[in-house]
Amino acid sequence: MQPAITEQRADMPSSLKALYAPVAGALSDVEDLLAAELSSGHAFVDGLIRHGFRLGGKKLRPALVLLSGQATGSRHPALSRLAGAVELIHVATLVHDDVLDEADLRRHLATVNARWDNETSVLLGDYLLARSICLAASIDSSSGEVGGEDAHLSCAFACRAIAEAARMMCEGELRQAASRGNFQIDEQEYLDIIAGKTAALIACSCQLGAHYADAEPDVVERLVRYGHNLGIAFQIADDLLDMTGDEAVAGKSLGTDLDKQKPTLPLIHVMQQASAEERRSLQKVLTGDGNHRRKTLQPWFERYGAVEYARRRAAAFAQAARREIEPLDRSPAAEALRGLTRFVVDRES
Amino acid sequence: MQPAITEQRADMPSSLKALYAPVAGALSDVEDLLAAELSSGHAFVDGLIRHGFRLGGKKLRPALVLLSGQATGSRHPALSRLAGAVELIHVATLVHDDVLDEADLRRHLATVNARWDNETSVLLGDYLLARSICLAASIDSSSGEVGGEDAHLSCAFACRAIAEAARMMCEGELRQAASRGNFQIDEQEYLDIIAGKTAALIACSCQLGAHYADAEPDVVERLVRYGHNLGIAFQIADDLLDMTGDEAVAGKSLGTDLDKQKPTLPLIHVMQQASAEERRSLQKVLTGDGNHRRKTLQPWFERYGAVEYARRRAAAFAQAARREIEPLDRSPAAEALRGLTRFVVDRES
Repeated sequence: MQPAITEQRADMPSSLKALYAPVAGALSDVEDLLAAELSSGHAFVDGLIRHGFRLGGKKLRPALVLLSGQATGSRHPALSRLAGAVELIHVATLVHDDVLDEADLRRHLATVNARWDNETSVLLGDYLLARSICLAASIDSSSGEVGGEDAHLSCAFACRAIAEAARMMCEGELRQAASRGNFQIDEQEYLDIIAGKTAALIACSCQLGAHYADAEPDVVERLVRYGHNLGIAFQIADDLLDMTGDEAVAGKSLGTDLDKQKPTLPLIHVMQQASAEERRSLQKVLTGDGNHRRKTLQPWFERYGAVEYARRRAAAFAQAARREIEPLDRSPAAEALRGLTRFVVDRES
Repeated sequence: MQPAITEQRADMPSSLKALYAPVAGALSDVEDLLAAELSSGHAFVDGLIRHGFRLGGKKLRPALVLLSGQATGSRHPALSRLAGAVELIHVATLVHDDVLDEADLRRHLATVNARWDNETSVLLGDYLLARSICLAASIDSSSGEVGGEDAHLSCAFACRAIAEAARMMCEGELRQAASRGNFQIDEQEYLDIIAGKTAALIACSCQLGAHYADAEPDVVERLVRYGHNLGIAFQIADDLLDMTGDEAVAGKSLGTDLDKQKPTLPLIHVMQQASAEERRSLQKVLTGDGNHRRKTLQPWFERYGAVEYARRRAAAFAQAARREIEPLDRSPAAEALRGLTRFVVDRES
């Protein structure tokens, strides 16, 4: 066994560990697989990869591949590799996000750009992206099932799905970059942006799990919609955390959305409720100098119940996710998928 | 037809246009395909993509896919898409390279990071990478040839080859980043680095062309080795250009390798020939302040014939590339492949 490139995170919440229980063994296989796959033979590169992986944490996406598979069909040998592939995409985007956000801290650790530099972060992210596709493209050789009746379980579907999710993520991020400083965008545009930026890969994880477990197409589609709604709920909760969370608990720099002038749901809600005059004052605070907007904006959020509003919206998406998987047979995996819809909105980190 | 996202470059050297003549029509199909594929429906994103593509120029990689295919086998419908996919990877790396190099100018145009910012460049590069894999993964649906006898011509081979090339490129770049400021690396290590950074995608382009033209495996391997040697020659010439070229002709910032403390072949040669005392003086110039090292180092290069040495090495790799394709049947495409081995070492931009 290789050195633990993907060493298990000490601070994974115990509630999450319990939800992952039905796939705990398979999830640990994914860790081993990534450790073995990712060693490059170059000390500098391997040190970077190890650090990059310590920045990831929840293993939500690989767990969703495995749980979606187990809840809807039979275990396919490709599932571990696909779980590894989506986690690689996720870590790649974390590494690049930290460049974009100029963040110094993630999960109580220095980010790659803080510890090395932007150049290294860009390259490491690209490297992990490339490795993800290499892994997804390798599933035929591992399962020996290309062609014939099982052609739909070849790597083509996975490569397409993962690349498409990555495309949607970048498009969401680019649209977010374009909307920076524009707090007049409406809720639908915000939702479209986070659907790409966050929900696409989560939906893709669920889709891959169900597809390669050979579930019926309509079940696969249910899982896609489950993942989409779960992802939206997850991101609204994440934005709330950035605005209201505790840095010591979250283990990362907070308040960066406001400092980076990203419009998020509580703010969009305030802007839509506020009078024209209030909007002008708000705009001044939002685009003015200084990095302590979180505090300054507190009274506005309270006046318009913005945090509660965003919490309600997140809960509604979580509920929509639950509804999608209601028809699934009862099983520990299906129960875990249901539990995750509660976890994503209640989490503190 | 979409607006010309990939508008033809005005300054493509006429010698190159002549070499591309056997595949001129197919190359123009690739441009149309990219224009149609890349439109995202978001004005900001499309503007970025259009700018990104104006930074590319030689279309060497798509031309190599098409020429390698034509020189070794029969025209396969996937070739245009694969040519588009490798060009997307190339443009993605240009966009990211300009972040890494903090370059302001490429092909007489402002780079994405200069015109927008690093964040936009990182995201645009990621987006193009993702679109490349989407395109490669789509060739089954376009040619309808997955499974059965033609399984080896499914998208699996292409996805693997492109992702593997991207992985090698990142690994090469990361190793280069790790070697920055270390002018004691030997020629072999330099060659290993540029084999990843540059030759991998060029070799991959030739491989894809021959493979999907259904050439015999040993012919495909010849084309891979041709591309590898061509790529090494290309990169040595590129490094020489950075050191000796004319910014007005090259249309980009030059001297950046020295300013970024990247060890390149002429310098490695000087360091290996110089006495211990000279090496110490050189090291001081190389790692000291100031961005005018090109001028200061000129006498050293002349003393050890460093530029001529690097030119000879580039020529040797170009010759090795020619040898690989000697057994191919005479054809305009094979002749163009031969011509390219001369072009890459003689070019001025």
